[in-house]
Amino acid sequence: MSTTTAYDDLCRRHERQHRLAHLQSIASWDQSANMPAKGNEARSLALAEMGGLLHQLATDGALKELLARAEGEALDEVQRANLREMQRAWRASNALPQALVEAKSLANSRCEHAWRSQRPANDWAGYVENLREVVRLHREEAKFLADSSGLGLYDALMDQYEPGMRAAEVDRVFGDLRSWLPGLIRDVQAKQAQETTLQPVGPFSKAAQRALGHDAMQLMGFDFEAGRLDESAHPFCGGVPEDVRMTTRYREDSFMQSLMGTIHETGHGRYEQNLRRDWLGQPIANARSMGLHESQSLSFEMQLGSHPAFASLLRPLLVKHLGDQPAFEEGNLHRLLTRVHPGYIRVDADEVTYPAHVILRYEIERPLIEGLIEVDDIPALWDAKMMELLGLDTRGNYKDGCMQDVHWGGGLFGYFPCYTLGAMYAAQWFAAMRREMPDLDARIARGELSAVFDWLNAKIWSQGSRYETPELVQRASGETLNPAHFKAHLQSRYL
Amino acid sequence: MSTTTAYDDLCRRHERQHRLAHLQSIASWDQSANMPAKGNEARSLALAEMGGLLHQLATDGALKELLARAEGEALDEVQRANLREMQRAWRASNALPQALVEAKSLANSRCEHAWRSQRPANDWAGYVENLREVVRLHREEAKFLADSSGLGLYDALMDQYEPGMRAAEVDRVFGDLRSWLPGLIRDVQAKQAQETTLQPVGPFSKAAQRALGHDAMQLMGFDFEAGRLDESAHPFCGGVPEDVRMTTRYREDSFMQSLMGTIHETGHGRYEQNLRRDWLGQPIANARSMGLHESQSLSFEMQLGSHPAFASLLRPLLVKHLGDQPAFEEGNLHRLLTRVHPGYIRVDADEVTYPAHVILRYEIERPLIEGLIEVDDIPALWDAKMMELLGLDTRGNYKDGCMQDVHWGGGLFGYFPCYTLGAMYAAQWFAAMRREMPDLDARIARGELSAVFDWLNAKIWSQGSRYETPELVQRASGETLNPAHFKAHLQSRYL
Ligand SMILES: [Zn+2]
Ligand SMILES: [Zn+2]
Repeated sequence: MSTTTAYDDLCRRHERQHRLAHLQSIASWDQSANMPAKGNEARSLALAEMGGLLHQLATDGALKELLARAEGEALDEVQRANLREMQRAWRASNALPQALVEAKSLANSRCEHAWRSQRPANDWAGYVENLREVVRLHREEAKFLADSSGLGLYDALMDQYEPGMRAAEVDRVFGDLRSWLPGLIRDVQAKQAQETTLQPVGPFSKAAQRALGHDAMQLMGFDFEAGRLDESAHPFCGGVPEDVRMTTRYREDSFMQSLMGTIHETGHGRYEQNLRRDWLGQPIANARSMGLHESQSLSFEMQLGSHPAFASLLRPLLVKHLGDQPAFEEGNLHRLLTRVHPGYIRVDADEVTYPAHVILRYEIERPLIEGLIEVDDIPALWDAKMMELLGLDTRGNYKDGCMQDVHWGGGLFGYFPCYTLGAMYAAQWFAAMRREMPDLDARIARGELSAVFDWLNAKIWSQGSRYETPELVQRASGETLNPAHFKAHLQSRYL
Repeated sequence: MSTTTAYDDLCRRHERQHRLAHLQSIASWDQSANMPAKGNEARSLALAEMGGLLHQLATDGALKELLARAEGEALDEVQRANLREMQRAWRASNALPQALVEAKSLANSRCEHAWRSQRPANDWAGYVENLREVVRLHREEAKFLADSSGLGLYDALMDQYEPGMRAAEVDRVFGDLRSWLPGLIRDVQAKQAQETTLQPVGPFSKAAQRALGHDAMQLMGFDFEAGRLDESAHPFCGGVPEDVRMTTRYREDSFMQSLMGTIHETGHGRYEQNLRRDWLGQPIANARSMGLHESQSLSFEMQLGSHPAFASLLRPLLVKHLGDQPAFEEGNLHRLLTRVHPGYIRVDADEVTYPAHVILRYEIERPLIEGLIEVDDIPALWDAKMMELLGLDTRGNYKDGCMQDVHWGGGLFGYFPCYTLGAMYAAQWFAAMRREMPDLDARIARGELSAVFDWLNAKIWSQGSRYETPELVQRASGETLNPAHFKAHLQSRYL
């Protein structure tokens, strides 16, 4: 006698999960930003309890039939899209046997934990023992996901972060990139070798940097009534769409990394803050993908940050909070913001060399998952590719080489391409904006950044997961992923 | 074929509730201390969802039989006590029909919300309309609780906050208090009229007060690896035992209220921080009662705060953070810490006049719940009792009279006695300490406050809810509640 549709039932279930996940997000943020040491065990147990509960709700036995019934119900276009995302979430939660989920989680934690001391000790031999088990389990995961989805092994993993993206497409765009990037890096370096750039002279107090960061977030349109900036050891953008919790960390000898990191996270934060309010609680409201998310942070940090006019927007904030100094002169500031320098560490890389790091990871992690290479092959491949792509010698230097970050140790296989796909999408957005708004650069120079933000809001933020990525990209920019825009952007900015 | 006892099953269920409630506590603290305005709706929905889930777990149909079966199992003394507390929790969660719980919650929220604007407008007529409904529902609640427990109406409500305490006992101890308190207040005022007391001269920056508060918490033994101090509009002590979240608020023109409030909350915080770690997650670990909790905060704020030696412990902290000034001279500081002044507002009251406010509330709320008076009778009773107990005229001044706080509007009937029971217990602890440690006052004067803290830890904090209150009090102090110690304390401190 119930008049409730299966679709309505599903919506209520997702809303419930959304509300409970809210508490998990805030408590996780608190764990990084506030929590004193002795709270850690109880917090971890509480979060694990909630993780188990959310998993239980996501794998509830009733869902399969509800999803099937909802398929046959009369739904409008938005509901249909929401149902598609519900099904995606259901598949993601139900594809793996519980024993594998637990084994993965254990192996990842063990590998990450040991890595913290193995990395400073340059202990590849120790690390590889744990990594081997992580890789074994993630190959198993890839097999399960591939079997249930019909995708290739690597595609099945990548699909978790970038739904719809396939290795064949990554090969196409990264193949193009690979053909011109090393040459471009050399050309830019040759050009910049002629320039003199003054380094800012510190120290820069935390309090001043905190105030500077707030003003920079204000410049980038962050809504402080729906979010905060705090400190944590590893900067991230967390919280919930209604209350975004960004973090940064300050070094008194240098402010640029924290400042540009804050601007980067503000891009992530505004995407979340502007997801459609009336959809929140449903999967359709969620940000489309990791690559799309990164396209927002990179629109802020790179597309705007390396814009020739951006230095003049930033300069008054620096002078206000840090006092004036010769390095803050606009031309010098722009040179600082666009400095290209091949280095070992991905997270410290500039806009031009960053994709080389990502190509390298992709070219290793894909055959690794596909079983074509083994973990013991990683260092030699790493050394060869670092030399080829960036001209750097990493032999024997594991800690600044294949042990520099813990993505693989933590099981994040298939994630790396998102960084560079994000950079490509960001370039594509700005190309589209310039077609629609021929005076865009003049507006940016006048500080009218809302031209950019309004476009991103209309085309990306407010669209959530309504469309599959290719359709979203097509609707936003008039074409699907086109790496030519990224190339044109780098050439025009850096040559 | 299960070898699990019903008792083990119950323990696991309570542990699960404890872990989920952890997230609720931290998210509630965050709502008061951190959350920006636009996060409120989503946070409230998330907390309500969790509240519903915890209620569902606490009223699970299987519990009744599990509790009955556990009764018959072989349990040691600690397990037996834990089972007693599980039963208490079960009765509390299951005594009321869900419809009444929801109606109460709605009426309380409505009354509290309206009170925020009605109080400044002195709008008794408006307030009384909402309060009437709140009282009606809480009389209904009292009836349900009394029917299921066999207690009197008021006792049934009070038992939620102070298990085992009965109105007959409150009558006995408050009756004694009432006979000598007004005379004592007059005598102290006459004595203090001879004294000259300098007021501290501000302003006192927030940053300096924050640092002062931290040092005061350190002096009082707060473990900063298991808790924090932050700011909120209404100071409280929240969080979880493993990670206590205290809050305060700062006024730049005055530091004393925030400082002594912080010392008060530190007493609550240390009780929580020192609940037995190996019991945490089970009801037996919990603080015994609201009165016992208040006996800790008042041991810190009043028993130590009004101690003649305390000014000399506080003075160096004031000088360090606020600079020196004549008001910080030790004798003057002690006079400031022990200033007695009858006033309208309970929360601003000193140690001597505070019980008068509580007696007044008790003498009104009890007959109100018992149906002997109606809400319309409150103002006249209030006026008469304020005149009788404190010599103050409150006629027509509702906002500083019966509308000054929102305990009744929020449905907290039966709670007020805990404040003064706490003050009495605190005096009783110090009397017992002095019997056991004849040099206690000398040790306090030397700043060896650990003598006090170790005693409280051994006798109260680490005992959790192992014993019913009378037994806990007897074991701690060698006798059950004896108001003579409170009288002796006030006389020796203030006359
Ligand atoms: Zn990012
Ligand atoms: Zn208190």
